[in-house]
Amino acid sequence: MRPEKTCGILSIRVIDYTEDRLEEHECIELTEAWSWIGRETVTWIDVVGVPEHDELVVLGKQAGIHPLTMEDITAPDQRPKVEEFGSYVAVIARMLSERDGRVASEQVSLIFGENYVITFREQPFQVFGQVRERLRNELSVIRGSGPDFLAYTLLDAIVGVYLAILDAVDDRVEDLQGRVLASADPLALKQIYELKEDLLTIRRAAVPAREVLGSLASRELSLVRKETIPYFRDIYDRCIQAAEVAEYTRDTLSGVMDLHTSNQNNRLAEITTILTIVASIFIPLSFITGFYGMNLMNIPLEDSPWGYPLVLLLMLGVAAAMLLYFRKKEWI
Amino acid sequence: MRPEKTCGILSIRVIDYTEDRLEEHECIELTEAWSWIGRETVTWIDVVGVPEHDELVVLGKQAGIHPLTMEDITAPDQRPKVEEFGSYVAVIARMLSERDGRVASEQVSLIFGENYVITFREQPFQVFGQVRERLRNELSVIRGSGPDFLAYTLLDAIVGVYLAILDAVDDRVEDLQGRVLASADPLALKQIYELKEDLLTIRRAAVPAREVLGSLASRELSLVRKETIPYFRDIYDRCIQAAEVAEYTRDTLSGVMDLHTSNQNNRLAEITTILTIVASIFIPLSFITGFYGMNLMNIPLEDSPWGYPLVLLLMLGVAAAMLLYFRKKEWI
Amino acid sequence: MRPEKTCGILSIRVIDYTEDRLEEHECIELTEAWSWIGRETVTWIDVVGVPEHDELVVLGKQAGIHPLTMEDITAPDQRPKVEEFGSYVAVIARMLSERDGRVASEQVSLIFGENYVITFREQPFQVFGQVRERLRNELSVIRGSGPDFLAYTLLDAIVGVYLAILDAVDDRVEDLQGRVLASADPLALKQIYELKEDLLTIRRAAVPAREVLGSLASRELSLVRKETIPYFRDIYDRCIQAAEVAEYTRDTLSGVMDLHTSNQNNRLAEITTILTIVASIFIPLSFITGFYGMNLMNIPLEDSPWGYPLVLLLMLGVAAAMLLYFRKKEWI
Amino acid sequence: MRPEKTCGILSIRVIDYTEDRLEEHECIELTEAWSWIGRETVTWIDVVGVPEHDELVVLGKQAGIHPLTMEDITAPDQRPKVEEFGSYVAVIARMLSERDGRVASEQVSLIFGENYVITFREQPFQVFGQVRERLRNELSVIRGSGPDFLAYTLLDAIVGVYLAILDAVDDRVEDLQGRVLASADPLALKQIYELKEDLLTIRRAAVPAREVLGSLASRELSLVRKETIPYFRDIYDRCIQAAEVAEYTRDTLSGVMDLHTSNQNNRLAEITTILTIVASIFIPLSFITGFYGMNLMNIPLEDSPWGYPLVLLLMLGVAAAMLLYFRKKEWI
Amino acid sequence: MRPEKTCGILSIRVIDYTEDRLEEHECIELTEAWSWIGRETVTWIDVVGVPEHDELVVLGKQAGIHPLTMEDITAPDQRPKVEEFGSYVAVIARMLSERDGRVASEQVSLIFGENYVITFREQPFQVFGQVRERLRNELSVIRGSGPDFLAYTLLDAIVGVYLAILDAVDDRVEDLQGRVLASADPLALKQIYELKEDLLTIRRAAVPAREVLGSLASRELSLVRKETIPYFRDIYDRCIQAAEVAEYTRDTLSGVMDLHTSNQNNRLAEITTILTIVASIFIPLSFITGFYGMNLMNIPLEDSPWGYPLVLLLMLGVAAAMLLYFRKKEWI
Repeated sequence: MRPEKTCGILSIRVIDYTEDRLEEHECIELTEAWSWIGRETVTWIDVVGVPEHDELVVLGKQAGIHPLTMEDITAPDQRPKVEEFGSYVAVIARMLSERDGRVASEQVSLIFGENYVITFREQPFQVFGQVRERLRNELSVIRGSGPDFLAYTLLDAIVGVYLAILDAVDDRVEDLQGRVLASADPLALKQIYELKEDLLTIRRAAVPAREVLGSLASRELSLVRKETIPYFRDIYDRCIQAAEVAEYTRDTLSGVMDLHTSNQNNRLAEITTILTIVASIFIPLSFITGFYGMNLMNIPLEDSPWGYPLVLLLMLGVAAAMLLYFRKKEWI
Repeated sequence: MRPEKTCGILSIRVIDYTEDRLEEHECIELTEAWSWIGRETVTWIDVVGVPEHDELVVLGKQAGIHPLTMEDITAPDQRPKVEEFGSYVAVIARMLSERDGRVASEQVSLIFGENYVITFREQPFQVFGQVRERLRNELSVIRGSGPDFLAYTLLDAIVGVYLAILDAVDDRVEDLQGRVLASADPLALKQIYELKEDLLTIRRAAVPAREVLGSLASRELSLVRKETIPYFRDIYDRCIQAAEVAEYTRDTLSGVMDLHTSNQNNRLAEITTILTIVASIFIPLSFITGFYGMNLMNIPLEDSPWGYPLVLLLMLGVAAAMLLYFRKKEWI
Repeated sequence: MRPEKTCGILSIRVIDYTEDRLEEHECIELTEAWSWIGRETVTWIDVVGVPEHDELVVLGKQAGIHPLTMEDITAPDQRPKVEEFGSYVAVIARMLSERDGRVASEQVSLIFGENYVITFREQPFQVFGQVRERLRNELSVIRGSGPDFLAYTLLDAIVGVYLAILDAVDDRVEDLQGRVLASADPLALKQIYELKEDLLTIRRAAVPAREVLGSLASRELSLVRKETIPYFRDIYDRCIQAAEVAEYTRDTLSGVMDLHTSNQNNRLAEITTILTIVASIFIPLSFITGFYGMNLMNIPLEDSPWGYPLVLLLMLGVAAAMLLYFRKKEWI
Repeated sequence: MRPEKTCGILSIRVIDYTEDRLEEHECIELTEAWSWIGRETVTWIDVVGVPEHDELVVLGKQAGIHPLTMEDITAPDQRPKVEEFGSYVAVIARMLSERDGRVASEQVSLIFGENYVITFREQPFQVFGQVRERLRNELSVIRGSGPDFLAYTLLDAIVGVYLAILDAVDDRVEDLQGRVLASADPLALKQIYELKEDLLTIRRAAVPAREVLGSLASRELSLVRKETIPYFRDIYDRCIQAAEVAEYTRDTLSGVMDLHTSNQNNRLAEITTILTIVASIFIPLSFITGFYGMNLMNIPLEDSPWGYPLVLLLMLGVAAAMLLYFRKKEWI
Repeated sequence: MRPEKTCGILSIRVIDYTEDRLEEHECIELTEAWSWIGRETVTWIDVVGVPEHDELVVLGKQAGIHPLTMEDITAPDQRPKVEEFGSYVAVIARMLSERDGRVASEQVSLIFGENYVITFREQPFQVFGQVRERLRNELSVIRGSGPDFLAYTLLDAIVGVYLAILDAVDDRVEDLQGRVLASADPLALKQIYELKEDLLTIRRAAVPAREVLGSLASRELSLVRKETIPYFRDIYDRCIQAAEVAEYTRDTLSGVMDLHTSNQNNRLAEITTILTIVASIFIPLSFITGFYGMNLMNIPLEDSPWGYPLVLLLMLGVAAAMLLYFRKKEWI
């Protein structure tokens, strides 16, 4: 799928729909988009990029949105949360993405009221485009439902990305595990470390999202219709699963780390074994050669023709004894 | 016991029973099976294989089953859960099995209403066949009870498998532990790792199942009769036990890992000890032989007939001193 | 104290008492024992050995005991729990014992109703005998109280055994810790492992027992008289203590394991230090001897009478320098 | 920003304000400052330095402040907490600061009543100065609100410092992690340790602050106006985030420690590999030279002109075989 | 302060007071002390030493104290707890003390009713003496309050000791940490271990004390006056702090253990490095000397006057190359 169309730093798109009509406007001004909010039809204002804080506060006042909500939207690293303020519900969530094999995360804010949904995000990403695609289809169940259902659809898309990215991370962990089981790969350490960080990024998105969706699924929010609650409960369940899988993958990863450490130990033992075998065989033999190299008188065998074969035999005997000993120890 | 009979990719079997009558149909179409749902008698529709999602949604509508439930059934890796939707209760659980010495897990879904139970599973497995066997017996307590009791019997069979497989894993852990206590088996690491993964598979089934059964045993579900609740409480207890035993076995396994690491350390120390002993005895001796191999004048004893025996004595003395030292250190 | 008297595989004893009368029958049939249940007096039926499941179910029906309770009693490894079924309370607990220096555990079941207590256990053990002894004493507070107080006395005896065995394990841990602090005992590992397993056995009994006693002490069970509740609260507190002490001892034990590992590391460092010292002194010296053993012309000192003393001085200098270096490093 | 002005050991400043008037007095006596408490306008008494305990108790009595609150203020290392005593709310919190690259923490106490806020702190620090700056601005929202909003603003400033310092610590951790990934830096250990301590200091401030703010945001404190609660909920969320980030950073740090340990292991293996390679090649070669240095008769090749080249060839062969073996092992 | 005066094995002291009168009796009999209990004035009976269990039960009956309470008092190692029995509240706590640099703990029991406080302790210790000193002061707030306030004062003294001892332990941990950061002190291990045990002793006192004080501060105990509750809440907070600090110190200590292990690893690597450097330089050189010591014909340079200087040059080159290599590796 092609990346979403954007227009400059701040890219605003309005979709206004009822069951049988859909109007779509791209690249308009924020103030213009705002004028849709009062209407009876359901309006989705999708803002890509970070608007000016002061402008937002002014617009917020017009729509009855609390300044604190607007602050949360413009502050970049808010913890995911949900809050009901009289006429609207504000949701802060995190979108995950994979760039150059690493997991990244950015803030997505979502406000929904009686007849509007406003989304704020820093970067364009495809999953919201897919929701738009479905909206354009007249038969879509979203078209016949209220803004709470659109909010559900968008959050569902976000949690779907969590599970997809977890799957990818899980594959990388299994791949790594296979390699670590096979040998003491010196690069494994760095990869374990990167995977740990990626899992942390995922957990920092999914764990608080679980609470957010728990609130949406259970709390008596007047803006969430009774028939939408099972849907929120459904993403709540998927979000629990995402948090759990992240936890399990972390466990597996720490098992891979243990494997790696154990492999390092094995390697050291193997190296030391080679040293011990070579040294234990040849150091005694060298002593024997040194013995018969001494400039002393009357060393036995030195002047006998049997000297050489007997000493050779002694050497072979020592070497054989050592080899037998090591074989018994199962080192060779 | 022979494997269950199946018919093609999708294998559907209907059992319709009252206390004194039982009808059984194999290898029928899904739509045909569906026609039993309305009847007063208790009907068990057992679906092996994954049906088409769209067909299920259509059939679901006929029986008053929510599309979200149908989605959970066809999605392969749902987290175990229980949900009540007006006229029925939907349970997602996981069945465990042992293949080639490893633990595998697959999804089992179960819907029960006023007078029907529908089960969906990916593969045929024997424990449901055993329940069928008991159903055919006219005196079975299942025959005289409602669909909630059949649901209990099926879930009880699933949890029974958890405990049986945990027993098998526990045996493997104890076996491994015996071997690791005996020696630093280099294969132990891989086996510890596999057992860890197997325990994870079990925990991923048993831990959420505990919540599921907790809900069934305590929550005021109108479809669970008051006299069936003690039965659900009973499998709830067994499921708590399964989760606990899995936890304890994991503890034991991590103890085995510690043993293995400690064995590796011991092995390294042992190897290094051999090296140290051999080197510490023969390197000084070789120095003595080298000393008497120097081409210098006036080296004492070199021209004396007492030279050889005295040097030999010195060597024996050095070796004996070293051996005594190592004996004192309890290295030999 | 002598072991309890038993009669064959299944050994049943009935004690029927009021404040001023006590009747005791040994080695009778289960059905005969059952006939005491209906009476106004308090009856304790004590069953040693595992009765037939089917017979129990039949007898259970007569006394109004649910088949699930009877199943729990005959199944060998139930998790400790308490359940109230209309006319009776069923308690599953675990008895601990020490055999050949290892902790073992077996199931004890206890049912008490309006005027009876039935206990089931696999093996005879002394603490129930002690309760019997106290019962025979007319002045005992048990004689004047109901079956709930007898149940308390029996559970109190069981929890008392937990604390006694924990004390013994604690002593073994402290003993081991002393030895490990003193030296790198190679047997320590196995003992740490066994103690870990013993603590696990204790925790598997004490942790769920805590919940059981919590229920008995707080829950509104109609069969537990108001004046008995402080007693149950008392064993509840002792059981919390048992679980806590087990946890603390486990902590201490894992500290002993750390000590042991650290000792292993020290030992390896010590061995390697010896090797390094010996090799670092004698390898350079051997090089010097080799140097003067070369068959080359014009090697300085070779033909001088000062050669030998000067070379000897050089050697002593090298050795002294090395020894000084190692002394500075605090290796010797 | 310049440091705050102080006057001697105890430096007291009073700001008294309504929406349209602000009066400010520096360097006055505590008793004088106290006289503002009764007024209708909002008064902020800011005390830098630790006043005498006895004087405080006396003044406390005048203002209806409980002696226990005054004790908490003068005791230096109280755990953060919030308590409502009739006419006022007392908050104990901790301020963080960074000195010489290490995180330090000091106690800040805050009492707010119907129309006053009293703050006690040991040292001057800038963030309260910033709040004062905002207060002086007539348009500030603080000017139009009550003492609970001033309390919020001050606590918000404190929590803001937590997040800023966590950011700085996080940067140091990432920096360290980069260096540890690159090499086995022997200084890393000390830095890991210092960062661990710094994180502990932060957690000791942020974790109990979370509870404090949770109470302020949710509990029915009559002194917190309904419209201020969302603001407290907002810092509560930020405080949760601070505690979470501290936790995550700690996790990352313990990962860095693992990396460091693994690097140490790699380094040891590398050193041992060099030793093994050198020794395994030259010890056998030295044996060969020793062999031909023995003073025995009839050693083959010794008197042949082919001796030297053949022995040389043998040596090269042994060395090459060893090198090939090590290459195969991927050690070189 | 001088140790408390005692009189024999069992040392009983009675203090009876109202706001304006105080009577004190030392070294009296338990039964005599008991006679004060009924009076209108507040009586503190302070028992040092363990009285006979049977006598206590009899006396308990007179004062309406439950036999279970008396059992808890005489049993030596009860877990801290609080229980209300009709007319009195019984508190079991643990007193900490420092003996020979190690932390020890003993049981303190405290019963307070409408107008009496009875304390039982095994050993005399000073902090109760300090409370007595304050009681003797007519202006003390204790004199004007009820037995619940005296109970608070005594428990406050106990918790104060927890914090003081934790401070001392913390100092020892920091001291140790400084030493471990400086070098691989072989004694550190034992000290870490002892500190761990001391912290365990503290936690075993402070953690359950937290629950005890939580109950006293919050539960609706009719014997705790409303105006005393803030005081109990205050020690409750201090007790939470004690438990937390113990936890943090334990964390720090386990960090010190990691440091120590890392130091051990460093030491081993350092030792091995020395060995590798010495061996890698001199083993090849010894081979060269051996080469020119072979009794073979036609070895190059052997009969040339350039032989010696050239071979010497070769040796110096080899040694220099090795040194350069190690320098590049940053080993020297």
